Amino acid sequence: MISDNLWVEETLKKLNLVKDMNQSNGFTRLGFSKEENEAKKEFQSIAKDLNLMTHEDAAGNCWALWEVDKAVPIVAMGSHLDTVYNGGGYDGVVGVLSALTAVKRLKDKGFKPKKNIAIIVFSCEESARFGISTVGSKALTGLLDKNEVANITDENGISVREAVNQSGLNWGKIEKASLDAEKIEQFIEVHIEQGKKLINNKKEIGIVHRIARPTRFIINCEGLTNHTGTTEMKDRQDALTAISPLINGIEKTTNQINEKNASSLVATVSTFSVKPNAMNMIPGKVSLGIDIRSTDSSLKNELVDYIRSFVEKVKRSRNVAIKVNKIADDLPVELNEKIQENLFNSCNKVGFSNMKMNSGAGHDVMNMSHICASGLLFIPCTEGISHNPREYTSVSNILKGTKVLEQYLEDNF
Amino acid sequence: MISDNLWVEETLKKLNLVKDMNQSNGFTRLGFSKEENEAKKEFQSIAKDLNLMTHEDAAGNCWALWEVDKAVPIVAMGSHLDTVYNGGGYDGVVGVLSALTAVKRLKDKGFKPKKNIAIIVFSCEESARFGISTVGSKALTGLLDKNEVANITDENGISVREAVNQSGLNWGKIEKASLDAEKIEQFIEVHIEQGKKLINNKKEIGIVHRIARPTRFIINCEGLTNHTGTTEMKDRQDALTAISPLINGIEKTTNQINEKNASSLVATVSTFSVKPNAMNMIPGKVSLGIDIRSTDSSLKNELVDYIRSFVEKVKRSRNVAIKVNKIADDLPVELNEKIQENLFNSCNKVGFSNMKMNSGAGHDVMNMSHICASGLLFIPCTEGISHNPREYTSVSNILKGTKVLEQYLEDNF
Repeated sequence: MISDNLWVEETLKKLNLVKDMNQSNGFTRLGFSKEENEAKKEFQSIAKDLNLMTHEDAAGNCWALWEVDKAVPIVAMGSHLDTVYNGGGYDGVVGVLSALTAVKRLKDKGFKPKKNIAIIVFSCEESARFGISTVGSKALTGLLDKNEVANITDENGISVREAVNQSGLNWGKIEKASLDAEKIEQFIEVHIEQGKKLINNKKEIGIVHRIARPTRFIINCEGLTNHTGTTEMKDRQDALTAISPLINGIEKTTNQINEKNASSLVATVSTFSVKPNAMNMIPGKVSLGIDIRSTDSSLKNELVDYIRSFVEKVKRSRNVAIKVNKIADDLPVELNEKIQENLFNSCNKVGFSNMKMNSGAGHDVMNMSHICASGLLFIPCTEGISHNPREYTSVSNILKGTKVLEQYLEDNF
Repeated sequence: MISDNLWVEETLKKLNLVKDMNQSNGFTRLGFSKEENEAKKEFQSIAKDLNLMTHEDAAGNCWALWEVDKAVPIVAMGSHLDTVYNGGGYDGVVGVLSALTAVKRLKDKGFKPKKNIAIIVFSCEESARFGISTVGSKALTGLLDKNEVANITDENGISVREAVNQSGLNWGKIEKASLDAEKIEQFIEVHIEQGKKLINNKKEIGIVHRIARPTRFIINCEGLTNHTGTTEMKDRQDALTAISPLINGIEKTTNQINEKNASSLVATVSTFSVKPNAMNMIPGKVSLGIDIRSTDSSLKNELVDYIRSFVEKVKRSRNVAIKVNKIADDLPVELNEKIQENLFNSCNKVGFSNMKMNSGAGHDVMNMSHICASGLLFIPCTEGISHNPREYTSVSNILKGTKVLEQYLEDNF
């Protein structure tokens, strides 16, 4: 029989569609792309080899079901297989892989669950392509606002609606995915931490109690394009010099807020574009995106106050127009306390060091927690690096997450 | 007979390939594009109507010749018909139009020149497409470094070499354009000022004695891409927050230098790109372009010293790598003093108020001044706005430039 190590190693590569995990440009499997579809097909093929029943729901979420009795509820696990541009091969994949591995090990040892067990691969979890995240789990849980997202486009001008249809689904029926969710009683996700808390605290497993969700802004600043060689400094309406102090202002203000509040706020100017972006033209338009996260909304609000006051000051002092659009403002999600307690117990039983923690990143489990009791387990990743070709976690770490999941299923179902 | 006003109005529209000069998106006729070719064909058709002989040289520069005697030298005028992205309809066009109008008026009044008179439309003057300017006049004057520019690409990955070949020319023979230049004895260009000195000084004509040329840098800053939600502020290697203080630092230092030196330095962070440029990813790479101009090289050097010291400081204080590439560093060009004196005399004769001034922008005349005595006349443009759909100068202003040019030809040839 194949060793667990080898099984995890081989399955990791299969789900990533590669023969070697060392890919200098990382992995690019955007939501609703051909590449994501291929990874989902690979998942279904692996699941079939484990004698699981597979199907795809109306939102492209792939299900693998270990059915013991049609009449009993479902305990679900899972994560996603899409990535950001040039991302790593572990974000999302680890959750799918540990669920598959836990099921394989339970089947190998002859475990007979009292509930049906499902593994779900959610489609389009990452916001890299459309700027909106967790599309598949939103559709599954009835949280997708179709009108709001239908016409959002990717960098090639393809809308969410078109991308969904192009990937072989039917946008008009995507909400029917929620019919598949009715029997789910619990959901557990395993994920790489994507930060350094586990490493810094020398712990093997994190059990998440709260998930921070982003407040996001797009700020557009408009001055006047003009010739760089002939326009004197005093006559300029340079959109870039007007708005750019905000970049370091956000960093400085965030650090100040954290000094008073134990470092729980993060904020980033993450997107930035300048027009006309030509060597001999003064920037006439700048658009920038800001991502703010904390499990404490009052800290986010303190930073938002700074941003708004900066914008008002610049509007008065510089000859530019500025528009501030809030595109997201979500409250933190609390995960189920009973599940956290049971995960602690199972984790202690298998003997891995652990800690209670918050998640700075959003995950599909956020949406699942709206329809059922849900839990989230973290395993460490090297240097906390994620969304980067250097993202890495060891097979040994993945197996630790798997064993907690397996023990939890044995203990509770 | 058609009035001068109507002729200028109609010819302006023809050269811009439109029936109405009000174009909300301005004009986009990039160098070596289909649109530039069409404008050059229109020029040749107008020139033929004036009984001028036309031909295109090996660099795509279009010539219209009023030949009186094959044995005598050529007095040349002209400018360009290509534009930046969404530029105005006057930058370049005015120089071609005033030369055509001057020739028309001289022919109408029966003037018999003692030298051959030529109008040249130089190809690819603007750096908008390839980041390199005055390609046509460089080829004509033997200043084009073919190896250096051949493989520079536009935003669609098309190289200069390919673009030249695609526009019906032969890159392999482009240097043969210089054969056409041998007989040129003088060159005069008329151009919109693209600044506010004429307006601020209430003058109708500017006579240029010196042209500032840019010193340009591309600065690449590399940190580490990571997840915005999970990477604590203290663990970041954010390329954007590391480099962005340079934007306002350049503005502030330039203003300080000008306070001591009568406002003759301009500097701009004009291009800016951030990677991966996604909402949930910390910027890992930033690339920015800086354009610095002055007719006084010591002022440029003072700013360059600031930039270099900023970069060294940031390399020490932030965990990022920074590369500084100087891509241009040109000395100012002095135009011919005798021609300036003659232009003043002719301008005073036709009764337009005038001033001696410097040019902040480069023009084809810079290259022509390497092979013959050369002069540059400015007419004002509204609010000094250029490289913008709002760029504008009146028919009356264009006719003033034309009349100085016409008088100059009558007085000297």
